[in-house]
Formats: sequence, structure tokens, C-alpha cells
Amino acid sequence: MTLIATLPAEIGSPVEEVDTPSLLIDLAAFERNLARLASVVRGTPVNLRPHAKTHKSPVIALRQIALGAVGVCCQKVSEAEVMVYGGVGDVLVSNQIVGGSKIRRLLSLAKQARISVCVDNAANVSALNDAALVAKVRLPVLTEINVGNDRCGVEPGEPAVALARQVAGAPGLEFAGIQAYYGRAQHIREFEKRREAAHRGAEKVSQTLDLLRRDGLACRVVTGGGTGSYQFDIEAGVLTELQAGSYIFMDADYGRNLGERRDSVTDFEHSLFVYATVMSRPTSGRAVVDAGLKSVSVDSGMPVVHGMSDIEYDRASDEHGRLTLHDPGRELHLGDKIWLVPGHCDPTVNLFDWYVGIRERRVECLWPVAARGAVS
Amino acid sequence: MTLIATLPAEIGSPVEEVDTPSLLIDLAAFERNLARLASVVRGTPVNLRPHAKTHKSPVIALRQIALGAVGVCCQKVSEAEVMVYGGVGDVLVSNQIVGGSKIRRLLSLAKQARISVCVDNAANVSALNDAALVAKVRLPVLTEINVGNDRCGVEPGEPAVALARQVAGAPGLEFAGIQAYYGRAQHIREFEKRREAAHRGAEKVSQTLDLLRRDGLACRVVTGGGTGSYQFDIEAGVLTELQAGSYIFMDADYGRNLGERRDSVTDFEHSLFVYATVMSRPTSGRAVVDAGLKSVSVDSGMPVVHGMSDIEYDRASDEHGRLTLHDPGRELHLGDKIWLVPGHCDPTVNLFDWYVGIRERRVECLWPVAARGAVS
Repeated sequence: MTLIATLPAEIGSPVEEVDTPSLLIDLAAFERNLARLASVVRGTPVNLRPHAKTHKSPVIALRQIALGAVGVCCQKVSEAEVMVYGGVGDVLVSNQIVGGSKIRRLLSLAKQARISVCVDNAANVSALNDAALVAKVRLPVLTEINVGNDRCGVEPGEPAVALARQVAGAPGLEFAGIQAYYGRAQHIREFEKRREAAHRGAEKVSQTLDLLRRDGLACRVVTGGGTGSYQFDIEAGVLTELQAGSYIFMDADYGRNLGERRDSVTDFEHSLFVYATVMSRPTSGRAVVDAGLKSVSVDSGMPVVHGMSDIEYDRASDEHGRLTLHDPGRELHLGDKIWLVPGHCDPTVNLFDWYVGIRERRVECLWPVAARGAVS
Repeated sequence: MTLIATLPAEIGSPVEEVDTPSLLIDLAAFERNLARLASVVRGTPVNLRPHAKTHKSPVIALRQIALGAVGVCCQKVSEAEVMVYGGVGDVLVSNQIVGGSKIRRLLSLAKQARISVCVDNAANVSALNDAALVAKVRLPVLTEINVGNDRCGVEPGEPAVALARQVAGAPGLEFAGIQAYYGRAQHIREFEKRREAAHRGAEKVSQTLDLLRRDGLACRVVTGGGTGSYQFDIEAGVLTELQAGSYIFMDADYGRNLGERRDSVTDFEHSLFVYATVMSRPTSGRAVVDAGLKSVSVDSGMPVVHGMSDIEYDRASDEHGRLTLHDPGRELHLGDKIWLVPGHCDPTVNLFDWYVGIRERRVECLWPVAARGAVS
């Protein structure tokens, strides 16, 4: 609820005239990222189901689907509502939905689009089943297993089979498969260690799939993986769906992952930026920009100043970002605008109401961050 | 822009029925905080000008003014617009405003309310003066000095006097005084060290005031200070205005400041909470709640589980908060709701569209976070 809604830019104007702080997309880089992952999965048995928690925008979701994605993931019911009412026909809520009111909203949505959801708890399975029977919906449900993330999920093997059995036996539910998301593996810096972690996770999935098969429980869907491990997630051969989200934007944190040749990962380009203005220039070695904690999330480290490796964004307060200039010859004047690569794209996107799409240094489009704040 | 705006609660309903994650105010604690600082400044030469970047709500600003505050501070022009159009008649933009379009918006506002602004740069003073002459407004301007924060501000002493002289000689501007904000001093844990830092800052203010007086430059306003140092800011005797903001809510970070008796600061109570639901309970020692990075800012540390010191919120991902249960006897069930004290209140408030005001465990009011996202 910004009571005073202002547009950050005028279509067609040069980027230098965009108000700050604002959220820019370099459209050419963004489109190359979209096309690149789409082409990687094409011809493999893996479908792409990008995570919409990254972008929170049906406009972007529909672009991903146009390039072959089978649907999207969402983390919350309210996020899924924005996707469905924005034209997305297939949403996996890759999370547990707990509480009567949220479950009823989920089931209402399931009458209007293809919706599936994850479970890791017997009581939650019962609650979903009871509500599905009332709503007269047969809800596809995936059992989430913990393959190393130590967050949600039942343990692989027998506990996963027991829960799957409960789902399969529930008349309001359809056992659709398993989710095995290994978020922590995404951020292991060393290429080989990241690969090993992803394969260790896949091994646990594989063993669980064997047990399920022995029990006559077929998995139509095995979903997981992400931007940091997509190559390994595909080569490991257990997933039917890849949940990568950040690949469209790439953030500074993913940029610190090392590639096979020990260089930084270069599969995807930075395409998301927080545009900021130098609003104080108190000493030769210090500048302050107008983008702080309320414009760029610092949970995964400070933003990086794009194209100026001699300038370090080293401290964020609510509405200030402090820059240290390491090159005494660097010119940076009051009013200059810089491009910041956010440390973590998802929570940074959630701070803004609009994307400003830039092509050839001009504003091409304004896209609403339609699910901004949709956390319920 | 949440395209699907939903209210998080029903007026009159018990708190247990409030949707999660949501932002709760314990109204009784909040009102005691409001009254307490108001009574501390009453009878001193210091006026209270609370920082509205904490709450982003004209409803709360008007409550502060009703208890004696002379107006509020804002950090951005867009934030000031929300305050003025929400009925606040006096706003200090405690920050530098750079760029033609933002300066014009500031001056438009200055025709409608009492607006003042800070400067730390000669070129910015010229730009403000030129625009003020065009707008036919005489804009009150304060010179910001750096008393130890190493962010914005000219150095105290001669550089501050030179800039003040420029302001005083600019026909479109009125030299109104100085701002000396020492944000870092607020968070020094030890009581005596915090006091020393605040007094060192005040000493620099005092010396600069002497130089200004010698130059015939009177300071109507000397503004600064905050929740972590308000006692020292008052006792040091240089401020005419105190800018405390967080005192209304208190966050976990301020809660770690030590009081005079080496205990935790107890002047103010935690009154702001993120309400969250346990949505996964995978092991006896682990639980997961539905409030992650998009519901609680972790820049100043993880949130604290209110009233349950044996439970630690130890990892946040986008939409998950992982809890570690240190007491094996603790009962915590799927669907249980907990109160989280955010690590840092200001950027946490900025994630929500609504405050849910709670009194005696029932919803009394819903207040919009009217300046949510107002960062320009």
C-alpha cells in the first residue's frame, strides 16, 4: 500500500531520467537468460517449472511458459493467486500450507487452475484431505523430503513412503510425487563440491523412489533443483521438473559461485539492478547513494557496484548506501546514477512496486511487481 | 502494488485468527512507549521530532504530535508527501535531496506544509536555491555535520560554517540550523561507552555552534539523537530537537543495548511483532514458520521468539524461518502461532501493507503502512 503511487519512469525516456531508487531490468540480458535455460532443458527429460518467488510477476511467468516452462512454483497461496489471476494455468505451491483459511483459498484456486502443493506432516495431509472433500476438489499433493536442506520435509526413505501412502489413501488427494529441494547446495562456491552435494541429494531421491515403486506408488512428478545446481540436477537424472528461479536475474551471491574452470559462473548474466543516485559526496574516498536497506536486501551480502570494481558498497542503513572509492582517480559526482547488483534478488524485488525494463539505455516497459508483499 | 489486496484480520476477532505472516502492534505497550518519551522530553529545552521512517504512518505521526511532538522527520520526499497528505503539518527531511525532479516535489510540498531539509554540499545548496527562487518558496535548510557517523555531512567546525554561510547568503533559502545525527552511537552496547560517544558527538556540535555564533549565524534548530542515546542527547544540552524513531516499537537490536545497571535497556517495551505460523515440524528439535526474509528484515540479526527464550530463530530464507528448539520439553505444534520481535523494526515495517493493532488479545484496528515502499 503505497498510498501515493508514482511511476518511476516515463516510457521511452533515457535511463538517466529514471527516478531512484528503482528496479531496472536489462531486457536483452534478461531475455538471453530466459532463452539459455529454456534451451538447456529442451531435449532432456526435465521440464522447467521456474520459481515465481523470484520475480512475483505474471508477465515474466508467461514469458517463461511461452519458452516451454510447464508452469511455475510459488511459495505462498497469495502469490499463487496473483499468478493464476494473471493468466498462469499451472502452479505448484512448493511449500506447506497450514491453517483452515489458507487451505480453503488454495482449494478455491484449484477449481480455477492446475494447482498442486507439498506436505511433510500427517496432520496437514488430513486437514488438506478434509477440506478437499468439502470443496469437492481432488488436489495433487507431493511429499517433500529433506535431502540436506534441514528445513521442511520428512526424511527420505521409509518416513517419506509412509507419508506418501497416507496421501495416496486419502480420497480428496492425489499422490503426485515428491519434492526434493536442496537450497543450501545452490550456494556452495566450489564447482565440484556443489556437484557432489547435488548428487548426494539426488541419491537420496533415487533411493526413496525405489521404495515408493516397491510400494506401488508411482511419482508423476519429482521436482527440485535451482539456479546454482541446474546442470547437476539435470545430469543426476532423477528430477522431472527443475525449479530454478534466479537464473532470469542472477544476483551478486550466485555470481560468487565458481564455474567448472574455477571462474565465476557465467551461464547467466546480471540483468536486475537497483538504480541509485549519489546524494552525498563528503570526502574524496566516500560517497553515499539513496538506496539502503529499504531498496536492496543485504541478507546475502552487500550489493555490488556494476562496472566499477574500484567502488565498494560497504554499509547500508535504511535509506543510505555508503560507497568507499578505492581508486583516487575515480570520478563520481553528486547526482551521478549507478547500477547496483543486489546481493539477493528475490527479497530485493519484493521491495519495489515496478520493474523498469531498459533496452539500449531507454525505458521500454513498466511491469508491476504484482505479488509484491504477497507473503500470506 | 499487491495486486490482490487482502486485509490480514477482522476487527474484533481474537489475535489467534489473524492471518500470518502479519505485523502486530501491542497497542498498550506502544502507547506506554509513546507516553514515556513524551514525558521525558517535557520540561526540557528539547522538542521531540520523531522519525517517521520507523512507522511510515500518518496515523502514528499524529498520535506523536498529539502528545507534544513538534512534527516528524522523513528520510525521503515521497515519505514526506505521505505524511503531509496524511495531515502532518511539519516535516524535516533529515537527508540530502538531489536531482531536479525530487527538489521540485520537495518545494511543492513546502507550499503546503512547514518543510525543511538538510544539505552537505555546495552544489546542492545552489540547486535548492535556484529551484526555490523559481518556486517562490523560502526553504528552511539545515547544514548536516558528521559527528562520527561517517556517512553524510560536512566536517564540523570550519567546513560546516562555510556551508552555513552559503545557505545564509542564498535568497531562496533560510539558514535554519544544523543536523548532527550519530546513528552508530545508538547501537554501542555498553551504557557508559554509548554515553561517551554521544557526548563526544555533542562536543563537536558545541564547537561548531560557537564558530557559527562568532559568524553571526544563529541556529534556530539543532537536531539529531535517537532511541539508543536519547538520555545523553538530552543531558548533553546542545540539541533543540530529538529525532528518536524506534522508541515506539523497540526491536531486538535496540533490546541488546545495556542499561545503566548493565541490564538490557528497559525504558521502552517491544510493541511490534511479526506474527507467524508453525508450518512444518519435521523433527523434535526443529520447526519452521512462515515468516522469512520477505516478512522480517535480518540486517541487524535474526528475529527473537517473544516469550520463548528456549526457541531460537536461526535461519531465514525467503518465506521460511527455521526454529531450533533447545528445550526438549517445549510443546510447539503445527499451526501454532508465535510472536517474533524483529531484529530491526524500520525495514521490517516496510515489508507490510497493514499494521494489526491488538489490545487484550483482540484486533482493535488496522492501520495502513501508508508510506510502505516510499523510497524515492
